[in-house]
Amino acid sequence: MRSSDTVAIVGVGLIGGSIGLALRRAATTRRVIGIGRREASLAEALARGAVTETTTDLSRGVADADLIVVCTPVESIAECVLRIAHDCPRHAIITDAGSTKARLVARLRQISATGPAPNREPDCGSRQAGTVPTRADQPRASGPLFIGSHPIAGSERTGVAAARADLFDERVVVVTPTEWTGAAELSRLTGFWESLGAHVRTMTPDEHDRVLACTSHAPHVVASALAVATPRDYLPLTGGGWRDTTRVAAGDADLWRQILASNSDHVLKSLDEFAKKLAFFRQALADDDQEALRELLQSGKSRRDALGS
Amino acid sequence: MRSSDTVAIVGVGLIGGSIGLALRRAATTRRVIGIGRREASLAEALARGAVTETTTDLSRGVADADLIVVCTPVESIAECVLRIAHDCPRHAIITDAGSTKARLVARLRQISATGPAPNREPDCGSRQAGTVPTRADQPRASGPLFIGSHPIAGSERTGVAAARADLFDERVVVVTPTEWTGAAELSRLTGFWESLGAHVRTMTPDEHDRVLACTSHAPHVVASALAVATPRDYLPLTGGGWRDTTRVAAGDADLWRQILASNSDHVLKSLDEFAKKLAFFRQALADDDQEALRELLQSGKSRRDALGS
Repeated sequence: MRSSDTVAIVGVGLIGGSIGLALRRAATTRRVIGIGRREASLAEALARGAVTETTTDLSRGVADADLIVVCTPVESIAECVLRIAHDCPRHAIITDAGSTKARLVARLRQISATGPAPNREPDCGSRQAGTVPTRADQPRASGPLFIGSHPIAGSERTGVAAARADLFDERVVVVTPTEWTGAAELSRLTGFWESLGAHVRTMTPDEHDRVLACTSHAPHVVASALAVATPRDYLPLTGGGWRDTTRVAAGDADLWRQILASNSDHVLKSLDEFAKKLAFFRQALADDDQEALRELLQSGKSRRDALGS
Repeated sequence: MRSSDTVAIVGVGLIGGSIGLALRRAATTRRVIGIGRREASLAEALARGAVTETTTDLSRGVADADLIVVCTPVESIAECVLRIAHDCPRHAIITDAGSTKARLVARLRQISATGPAPNREPDCGSRQAGTVPTRADQPRASGPLFIGSHPIAGSERTGVAAARADLFDERVVVVTPTEWTGAAELSRLTGFWESLGAHVRTMTPDEHDRVLACTSHAPHVVASALAVATPRDYLPLTGGGWRDTTRVAAGDADLWRQILASNSDHVLKSLDEFAKKLAFFRQALADDDQEALRELLQSGKSRRDALGS
């Protein structure tokens, strides 16, 4: 199958390495090319069997790729995709694994519909979410196509050493096509993620960012603030509750700064919504309104139980 | 050894059942008597080997016990201890496994120093934390002695089915002696928890409640509010972060209502401290002050990393 004959993964850390391992497990892809800047990481990815070959040369690495997944930190995805679009085959699909989508997709709108003209600087000026050209503005032409992805999987750990072939099993990957994404290309990308064990859900970039602000980005801020609010000498008196509630705070600070800053409007709204709910708990406690307190705790339990452990 | 020949456990759920399993593992206790109201739970505890015998009769269950651990919900501990004190041997130590200590210890101050006189109603009136008689008011006399304990171990699960022999291994048990607790009795209780694999730390009841408000009770409220703030139809788009951060919200709502309500002053202060830290994150995001945001996230990471996974 041409669509999965050669896959290039840019950035073979936890996510990129896990994509490689899952691809190798699926055994539908002949070549899995790991591209990165650090030779040591690439060697480790190769040793773990996450990729079949490696290179530090982005242009060469993507030259034969049918599908390219950019697994770099959020802030460097756009520039990386634009470079790739100049060097990869015209039939290639480029996607990413970043945690925010609206600004990225808006910035990459030129190759969300058409491949960039050779030697023409792509328009990188717009960073505003949701401003997209209409179909009439940007008729689909032949050339590599970018479609945003966000696999909702991962952990506070980083690096290919933490990569797992089953990281995407039964997990959701959000794919964010635009109105000019062709059905055939969307189908190819969907099939790719499904071959890794994931379920694909399509959403608009802005819808994705609004929901993920609530389900991931604001909770990260809350967990981090909780960790900061705990004096160091209290740590020996923490139990499983604190340990779980703050676990994500161990995530890489700069990666999370990028995620939060690239979705700040939605994150602020989610934090305000959370603060409202927290105020209900606070009021019930301050009033010694035990029935209200029990009902609030029961609401939290019901919502949590709906997910399962 | 007389001190551990017969141990009675009142309430054989997750904590009580785990105490029983750990005692049986240590093999230093001849009789482990499980006391409860539900025959089915007692039968399950017996079948799991958490206890050597069971009864629904509290008086008979504690009649021969050298040490009694009350593992009932926070609000019913005091009354239970007072009943036990009338029926257990005069040399017995009574302790508990409740998550808050100040109100409980204050209420039980009469048997924190002396055994209650037969047929005299113990003073149950005072619920104010920290009001304790001086040594001169309450000279230590012979009789069962109450010393508060709080094993910082557990999970969002409940019931003896979730009990584990290793639940207390390397975990901290806070013991809250008062100024009239004899050294010999404190040593007996400390030895008991250590035989279950735990490390014992002594604190005043109020100090315990202040620290645990920060490390356990406020985080529970935060986790629950976070769960409540997440619309049900967003749940399929949650990942490991949300799952960890909200895990404790699945805990029993009424048990947690009792814990929070019995430590409301300290919990409110901890929530306010958390809200202050959260406001720093919010401000950094609103100002797009990425350096401040990165520093805050790094502070959270450092605090969390200091604990380990």
